[in-house]
Amino acid sequence: MKALNYFFEPKAVAVIGASHKPNKFGRVIFENFVNAGFGDKVIPVNVKGGEILGRKVYKSVLEYEGDLDLAVIVVPAKFVPNALEQCGEKKIEAAVIISGGFKETGKSGAKLEETIKEIIKKYGIRVIGPNCLGVFHARGVDTLFLPNYKLVRPILGGISFITQSGATGSAVLDWASESGIGIDKFVSYGNKADVDEVDILNYLKNDQTTKVIAMYIEGTDRGRELFDTVKKVSAIKPVIVLKAGDSEVGSRAVLSHTGSLAGSSRVFKAAMRQAGAIVVQDIDEMFDIARALLMQPLPVGDKVSIVTNGGGFGVLCADAIDREGLKLTELSRKTIADVKAESPSYAVIKNPMDLVGDADAKRYRAALKALIRDPNVDSLIVITLFQTSQMGMDVVDVVIDADLKTDKPILLASAGGGFTALARKLIEGAGTPTYPTPARAVHALAAVTKYAKYLRDRNIRRGA
Amino acid sequence: MKALNYFFEPKAVAVIGASHKPNKFGRVIFENFVNAGFGDKVIPVNVKGGEILGRKVYKSVLEYEGDLDLAVIVVPAKFVPNALEQCGEKKIEAAVIISGGFKETGKSGAKLEETIKEIIKKYGIRVIGPNCLGVFHARGVDTLFLPNYKLVRPILGGISFITQSGATGSAVLDWASESGIGIDKFVSYGNKADVDEVDILNYLKNDQTTKVIAMYIEGTDRGRELFDTVKKVSAIKPVIVLKAGDSEVGSRAVLSHTGSLAGSSRVFKAAMRQAGAIVVQDIDEMFDIARALLMQPLPVGDKVSIVTNGGGFGVLCADAIDREGLKLTELSRKTIADVKAESPSYAVIKNPMDLVGDADAKRYRAALKALIRDPNVDSLIVITLFQTSQMGMDVVDVVIDADLKTDKPILLASAGGGFTALARKLIEGAGTPTYPTPARAVHALAAVTKYAKYLRDRNIRRGA
Repeated sequence: MKALNYFFEPKAVAVIGASHKPNKFGRVIFENFVNAGFGDKVIPVNVKGGEILGRKVYKSVLEYEGDLDLAVIVVPAKFVPNALEQCGEKKIEAAVIISGGFKETGKSGAKLEETIKEIIKKYGIRVIGPNCLGVFHARGVDTLFLPNYKLVRPILGGISFITQSGATGSAVLDWASESGIGIDKFVSYGNKADVDEVDILNYLKNDQTTKVIAMYIEGTDRGRELFDTVKKVSAIKPVIVLKAGDSEVGSRAVLSHTGSLAGSSRVFKAAMRQAGAIVVQDIDEMFDIARALLMQPLPVGDKVSIVTNGGGFGVLCADAIDREGLKLTELSRKTIADVKAESPSYAVIKNPMDLVGDADAKRYRAALKALIRDPNVDSLIVITLFQTSQMGMDVVDVVIDADLKTDKPILLASAGGGFTALARKLIEGAGTPTYPTPARAVHALAAVTKYAKYLRDRNIRRGA
Repeated sequence: MKALNYFFEPKAVAVIGASHKPNKFGRVIFENFVNAGFGDKVIPVNVKGGEILGRKVYKSVLEYEGDLDLAVIVVPAKFVPNALEQCGEKKIEAAVIISGGFKETGKSGAKLEETIKEIIKKYGIRVIGPNCLGVFHARGVDTLFLPNYKLVRPILGGISFITQSGATGSAVLDWASESGIGIDKFVSYGNKADVDEVDILNYLKNDQTTKVIAMYIEGTDRGRELFDTVKKVSAIKPVIVLKAGDSEVGSRAVLSHTGSLAGSSRVFKAAMRQAGAIVVQDIDEMFDIARALLMQPLPVGDKVSIVTNGGGFGVLCADAIDREGLKLTELSRKTIADVKAESPSYAVIKNPMDLVGDADAKRYRAALKALIRDPNVDSLIVITLFQTSQMGMDVVDVVIDADLKTDKPILLASAGGGFTALARKLIEGAGTPTYPTPARAVHALAAVTKYAKYLRDRNIRRGA
């Protein structure tokens, strides 16, 4: 079977169904490739011929003399078989079929999809879709037909996202761009006439630039293979699974949505967990955890220390640590002595460590220096409330410095308005994930800690 | 006992400890009152005399001839008894003692606090503090000594917030301002030498402009009275309680933070729930629920309908409804017939109702019109994914119109970037609470629905 790399790093692309009218799906996709700098290496194909953006339109891929390795098909469903057949003849390696109107629409659509499958078999061409958004990769491939002002494309980053739902995928991409979350490879695979979640996971397993895999799934036809694959991938990089159709009512909703059987959700999720996946319930939860996994090393244990300048947030954080099954560690004597030497007498130097309301960068520096060296500390939750006049932007540097100096995970929680948002952005930009509340930071840390334990228990040294 | 209204609507204020140096706490607070337009009705008091901002500084409140009803005391702890004594002599109704250095610091501080209590008793003056941020009310009172660029003051709104932790309070206010959440009265009550959470709740119970009460609490000395008071208040307006020190480790942390015993958290929370309070675990959860309660009417039952233009989000929403103990309702025949008449054949017209990827304002209008009239629908979750070209700003008007026409609660979920953020802001500004994911919207709706049931079960018609 051919590799999937042609979907993400094609050398020459045909957009079949490139339209003469602006804003039409085929036109948007063609322009995406032009804007990404494909130049002559993207050709518009349309039975009507003519010109688009001053470029010759080919009536079929067969009319084009150069090599092509990827086709994006955006013609009405009934024309798809012929277009795909021509791709096969042209020896194109891979095709993304954006068009809907297949098995999701009923019997005649399902029959058309069978025809597609026969053509796939005949030529060995790899196909993503039909009925999907296709592929987005910030290095150039963009088959999303949604306008850029509605769906702002995210920056390049280490998280790859696979989704069975196109709309969920587009909302997630748009959200990621707003949140500054970097995405490597995005695949909306639709009806999976050929490529499915198992294939994509197998590809991403060995993909150098994918560090964390996040996945929205409603149901699978290959439960056993999915389990085996997730198990293999998890040994190398984390897989976060958002399973929709979790409940009975939800799974009935899946049936009307993608026509696939959700299966027993409890069994599915238990199996995914057993295979090392991190199972989540919501999208913000998925990215809270993905950011922590991407930016931070894995902890060697579950002993957490908290440092804060607000006692209340320290208490909320301790509550969350207990709720999530982590351990509020006992600090070493040396740590306590070292930090006490640099703090006023009214600071509370234990765990949670409350540097109190007049804490400044200097006090945080002393605390973090001691905590990252403490053998009793496996990971740190740093809480910085920037509302006081003592908490300036110099605290940002202190957090960044501490994180650079340690291989223990540090997650930051900071609630507030504009000043806080800016401080969080700077800290996150430098590599420490930040959260609006202690509970969310701790929830992410708990997932990371569980994943680390999963690997440890199996004597797996993290690859990649 | 004197009423607490002098704290929120004083006619004339003394700032005792108003400093000659900019940025000092006493100076910031004095300027807050000047900037709020108190004019001659705020006087600076400082034993050094002189002038501040061209205004005469009084050496004591006794030196001032006019009437005063509120004093804000910002002098070092050891000078507080004398300052408060003078307030008593001057017949000032109420004082906020910002200063720390009392029972939170140990034995000698505790003794000083006892002295304070004796003076309170002697004069019947009402006191908030010591060791607190005090009071913020957007109509003018602002004893927060934190600079405005660090702690941006929120707009006036219907939520009043009471907090045992000053730092938590300041972070929450700053966050509320960033999120556009309106705050009515804010009280950080510190060591509660006099006024405590029970007193404030009793006051807010009858306060016309407070529609929803949110409360951060670590522990109480008056468990029985708190229970009785919450029960009375809940019958009139909702009380949301964030109890910190939830876990054993958290409750030990409370002890080092405010020196109060957290008590058995499980018992406390069960009692609060029994008294009608909505108990939450995190700050974002608290405001997710507060916004829903503030902006929307209570549902008459637990039957929820979902409308969406993305099937995946519909499934996630159905999952959340099941998880939260709500009911995914069966739509009436009329609703289904009416919406089908206005939708393409490939739309999924049941519950969740999936208007599919090419849905526009017209399709949403038809769906919402039918759903708000459906007797089987008690509340609505509206999901709008704005990434498609068909979903324009006209959808915003459709949601707002529907919400104006119904007394059923509508909560909106919408994930995305800039376009979505703007649409959400407009919708929220018009009175429909919005959430970044279906799960968060449903969680808020579940709390609102539970509160409605609490009132129904007791035959309470909501007051206010």
